[in-house]
Amino acid sequence: MLKAAIVGATGYTGRELVALLSRHPGVRPFYLTSDSYAGKSFAEIYPQFRGSCELTLEKLDVKEAGTCDIIFAALPHGTSLEIVPHLLATGKKVVDLSGDFRLKEAALYPLWYGYEHKQSALLAESVYGLPEHNREAVRRADLVANPGCYPTSVQLPLIPLLQADLVEAEDIIIDAKSGVSGAGRTPKQPYHFPECAENFKAYKVTGHQHTPEIEQGLAAAAGRQVTLLFTPHLVPMIRGILSTMYLRLKPGVKEEDIAALYRKVYADEPFIRLLPAPSLPETKDVSGTNFCDIAFRADRRTGRLIVISAIDNLVKGAAGQAVQNMNIMLGLPETAGLM
Amino acid sequence: MLKAAIVGATGYTGRELVALLSRHPGVRPFYLTSDSYAGKSFAEIYPQFRGSCELTLEKLDVKEAGTCDIIFAALPHGTSLEIVPHLLATGKKVVDLSGDFRLKEAALYPLWYGYEHKQSALLAESVYGLPEHNREAVRRADLVANPGCYPTSVQLPLIPLLQADLVEAEDIIIDAKSGVSGAGRTPKQPYHFPECAENFKAYKVTGHQHTPEIEQGLAAAAGRQVTLLFTPHLVPMIRGILSTMYLRLKPGVKEEDIAALYRKVYADEPFIRLLPAPSLPETKDVSGTNFCDIAFRADRRTGRLIVISAIDNLVKGAAGQAVQNMNIMLGLPETAGLM
Amino acid sequence: MLKAAIVGATGYTGRELVALLSRHPGVRPFYLTSDSYAGKSFAEIYPQFRGSCELTLEKLDVKEAGTCDIIFAALPHGTSLEIVPHLLATGKKVVDLSGDFRLKEAALYPLWYGYEHKQSALLAESVYGLPEHNREAVRRADLVANPGCYPTSVQLPLIPLLQADLVEAEDIIIDAKSGVSGAGRTPKQPYHFPECAENFKAYKVTGHQHTPEIEQGLAAAAGRQVTLLFTPHLVPMIRGILSTMYLRLKPGVKEEDIAALYRKVYADEPFIRLLPAPSLPETKDVSGTNFCDIAFRADRRTGRLIVISAIDNLVKGAAGQAVQNMNIMLGLPETAGLM
Amino acid sequence: MLKAAIVGATGYTGRELVALLSRHPGVRPFYLTSDSYAGKSFAEIYPQFRGSCELTLEKLDVKEAGTCDIIFAALPHGTSLEIVPHLLATGKKVVDLSGDFRLKEAALYPLWYGYEHKQSALLAESVYGLPEHNREAVRRADLVANPGCYPTSVQLPLIPLLQADLVEAEDIIIDAKSGVSGAGRTPKQPYHFPECAENFKAYKVTGHQHTPEIEQGLAAAAGRQVTLLFTPHLVPMIRGILSTMYLRLKPGVKEEDIAALYRKVYADEPFIRLLPAPSLPETKDVSGTNFCDIAFRADRRTGRLIVISAIDNLVKGAAGQAVQNMNIMLGLPETAGLM
Repeated sequence: MLKAAIVGATGYTGRELVALLSRHPGVRPFYLTSDSYAGKSFAEIYPQFRGSCELTLEKLDVKEAGTCDIIFAALPHGTSLEIVPHLLATGKKVVDLSGDFRLKEAALYPLWYGYEHKQSALLAESVYGLPEHNREAVRRADLVANPGCYPTSVQLPLIPLLQADLVEAEDIIIDAKSGVSGAGRTPKQPYHFPECAENFKAYKVTGHQHTPEIEQGLAAAAGRQVTLLFTPHLVPMIRGILSTMYLRLKPGVKEEDIAALYRKVYADEPFIRLLPAPSLPETKDVSGTNFCDIAFRADRRTGRLIVISAIDNLVKGAAGQAVQNMNIMLGLPETAGLM
Repeated sequence: MLKAAIVGATGYTGRELVALLSRHPGVRPFYLTSDSYAGKSFAEIYPQFRGSCELTLEKLDVKEAGTCDIIFAALPHGTSLEIVPHLLATGKKVVDLSGDFRLKEAALYPLWYGYEHKQSALLAESVYGLPEHNREAVRRADLVANPGCYPTSVQLPLIPLLQADLVEAEDIIIDAKSGVSGAGRTPKQPYHFPECAENFKAYKVTGHQHTPEIEQGLAAAAGRQVTLLFTPHLVPMIRGILSTMYLRLKPGVKEEDIAALYRKVYADEPFIRLLPAPSLPETKDVSGTNFCDIAFRADRRTGRLIVISAIDNLVKGAAGQAVQNMNIMLGLPETAGLM
Repeated sequence: MLKAAIVGATGYTGRELVALLSRHPGVRPFYLTSDSYAGKSFAEIYPQFRGSCELTLEKLDVKEAGTCDIIFAALPHGTSLEIVPHLLATGKKVVDLSGDFRLKEAALYPLWYGYEHKQSALLAESVYGLPEHNREAVRRADLVANPGCYPTSVQLPLIPLLQADLVEAEDIIIDAKSGVSGAGRTPKQPYHFPECAENFKAYKVTGHQHTPEIEQGLAAAAGRQVTLLFTPHLVPMIRGILSTMYLRLKPGVKEEDIAALYRKVYADEPFIRLLPAPSLPETKDVSGTNFCDIAFRADRRTGRLIVISAIDNLVKGAAGQAVQNMNIMLGLPETAGLM
Repeated sequence: MLKAAIVGATGYTGRELVALLSRHPGVRPFYLTSDSYAGKSFAEIYPQFRGSCELTLEKLDVKEAGTCDIIFAALPHGTSLEIVPHLLATGKKVVDLSGDFRLKEAALYPLWYGYEHKQSALLAESVYGLPEHNREAVRRADLVANPGCYPTSVQLPLIPLLQADLVEAEDIIIDAKSGVSGAGRTPKQPYHFPECAENFKAYKVTGHQHTPEIEQGLAAAAGRQVTLLFTPHLVPMIRGILSTMYLRLKPGVKEEDIAALYRKVYADEPFIRLLPAPSLPETKDVSGTNFCDIAFRADRRTGRLIVISAIDNLVKGAAGQAVQNMNIMLGLPETAGLM
């Protein structure tokens, strides 16, 4: 069994990594760190792991992390930036789950993340870990920037459409909805049960930091700049993201062309499920899985294409995709521990 | 005290009408009908009314209904069509909460509602009861077609923009989200708790019957045909609708223009609340009220205008607006029983 | 209109007081204090009050509070203890919603609340505000200790049984369940949405501070000491308490005796609803109301009596009962603003 | 791979069986029957199984079922009674998940289930499948009656206490709380989302059919008749049961005696987790697992023992325990497919 380090193991993505690796046939969680809970058992923080993961949480010791075969960094934005270079210096491969190494252009960080990014070399070196479209680069990568939850749900359905030039790149609207675990484990007023149960709202309208990440991925697919509108919403449920995407079909493109394209691109992808009409994605159908469910409808009345995708924000949108990337990086079967 | 008849009192809109009228200073629920529960007490069906509304449900007797000062029809689509003409024949004013008298063009009914509409005369005569934009016609109406929940949440924010020609009428996308009570009181698989708790999904994509109702209202405002895309979603909560609307600003139109317009049109409307930035509508803030909360953001990057509204689907989206219409029709203060 | 001060207006009970008093025919919220939000508008904290309560929150100034006709203290346990004496010194009547003046025996505070209570004189003077059993004392009181949420749900059904000696006082088990708003507005880990949605648990088993409050009330009813077992649970819902109470019938006591007793004691109480079989209390039936719904079953197999009650923890369990007490103290109709 | 038949595969327990067996190392779902959905794909009913279980549902053909190595009957009470004898006639072992073969005394069925039970021979032959206390009998059984969800949550913690005579058998109160999936997949009014979200209630007070099942198990443990009080409640969550049990300690019995007993009895049980104080069971900690979490507190003030257990009603309370029984019956490792 290979050994995995999880730096920042007590957030929800850390917990999900522990859960997935505990069932993995080739890798096991071995070294878990936490600043706030060092000295406690992981199962004390997450009692569902009693009997299945009783590792003790430790303050990060980079050398210790370096004794593992793979290192996951599941840290807040801004913190990862400081720590990942040290982790890489151990010579081990790193999967970073923060946003700190996802954008290629350092100048975007002050605008969208609110901090100066001084690791341009690492930005250039890091590989964006969307395996369905970047598998070979992931295989060779030392540092994988694991995609954001929303960007995963958006890029998987939209990249093929832009690569094949079936939709207008200038007119993309994304209306996305996420469960509350997307906001992390730290208690805050908007996520206090009596505040967010029986409530629905949009947030960070026109300003969510996943916007440039999506634009970067779609621009690469389209071969030109993409500027789009992305509006996230908060759903009173624990897990899941549903993204509703509004596009304009290029003249002459028909519903069958979209269907044929998706089949060609995704027929052999183990984690993409194309839903035949009249089915539509629902978050509960992907809950706890690494699947991305995709459906679409062409609207003759308006000439619009509506694409809908569903993922589990903590699995395909975070820890599951990180394990998928790890599998590729370590030469394991890509679906190991994920089916 | 004036007397109100509620035909079809045991659905959720019927219940909400009883609740609102029980607190009304000038009108009281007097005659409640139900096909399935005739003979039972209303409080037996809805025990929260024990001690506050102990009326017995009766099979509809049109003459009895006609002894009341106002008649509400809270019946399923298709059923209202058959019954409302008889109610009108009593000479009393009727507020119909179904979709059966909302569309002016009879030919739209087979397409969107799935039935032939043979009451063209009533379609012509009925008044669409959106008081903020139709107050005088409501005052004189014998039959008010109470707007749908989604259409209310969409037309209140969009009508002024189209009337003032600040946005393109050709490029409107509406992404709407509703709590489960919008699906009515009859138990069905998709609304069974274990199916819709912890779940989020779109439904009736490109085919929801509220689409032509919204288009009709916006076309009247724009002075030309409007074809738009409307996508409803189901939120795991009981009440509330949040609509996120994507529009394209006309050249030269600025955020301040939108703000000024809304202030001019809605400053004196008792049930419209314009939220100043950085506030955004949330369904819990309008829960149980007749308010429609509205906010907007112009996105410089894409030239889009995002407008967001929140209502309680059962109040401003149904029974509350019906009472507002009743107040106008009976010459009572418009806010009576609604504040 | 009389004027009310609410000291600590931004917690959930404070908010509920503002809501109830905003609809009250004889009293209006006039002076709202908050330590953390002083200077902000109340509607900024609770946007549902936009347009209905736009008062500015202020740092507590005791003299200002004293210009009102009634003062509500909605402060945390331990803080009320320090502030209420000053409020009383203004000569105005005070309703305290904390636990600080509910127990007559000062020695119980270190055990159950974890602090020394040095205001024995006020403990003696304060009147326990359960109007159904203490109306006359409330009328004359300067300081009313408003009962706890759980104790209200338990004492209303059990006091008559113990007064009439129909059940054994030595064998009382209370299994109570509360919605999450009972834990207050401050975000904490156990009440973070992803932690308490889809979860159910007991808490403070054998050690909840409402235990001695219930025992004190039942002992007074029974005329002798009562020691009971009280186990609270957390339900993934916003509002509501359901208490299931297990008692042993005295020899020869029959179900009809219980029914007759309840009718005799509670027939004229406006806020008590006795449910005839087969009805059982449900929290949604009392949500947003000042009602306490009560039902019971005698179990022939075990000789036990099961009594079940439901209240809204924020209304009859807090703010609603406080307004009921205020009505009595100020000589207003007891149901004013509560129906 | 051995083959499993699931008769009645589209209810929630059927679905859960499919889920567990799809991950099982030695057995796979092979033959799925459904009356209402015959001809459809299982994944059409439960889209989360797209790509993982695409079996077609068939009308029950007993011979076909008999080609499998094990047969699960996941049918409604009363229906199982008719069908199981035919399934047994194939010579294959059967695990029945209904209540139809759990009670040894046929006379109890009319009282608690409302039907006459004419298969006394099968009642005598069937083995009650609570493996922790009945493992050897299960190993030899042809027909295992899989325990009810509530009875599992109650008997696992209480059987040892009664066997060791540490508590009074005459004074047992069980206050149990279940998520809504316990009510099955058929939509009904009380389980309609807007009815049971934000609601909590007791149901079937003094009359739930699991009462005699619990009494039968505890009587066997105590060596004498047990009559107890069992009150179930409905929690607004999908999965999980928490049972709070109130017992009276025998004179002289101490908290440490209870702890020592549990350790002795359950230390090596793979699916029982004894929680050390101050931990308490929470349903989310066992969600999706076959664990039963148990904690207890002795209350010095009342001499009572409070025992609390949590299980997932669909796993340890149904399908998981059925697979555990199957593992034993087929000579597989007991935890296969369950960890």
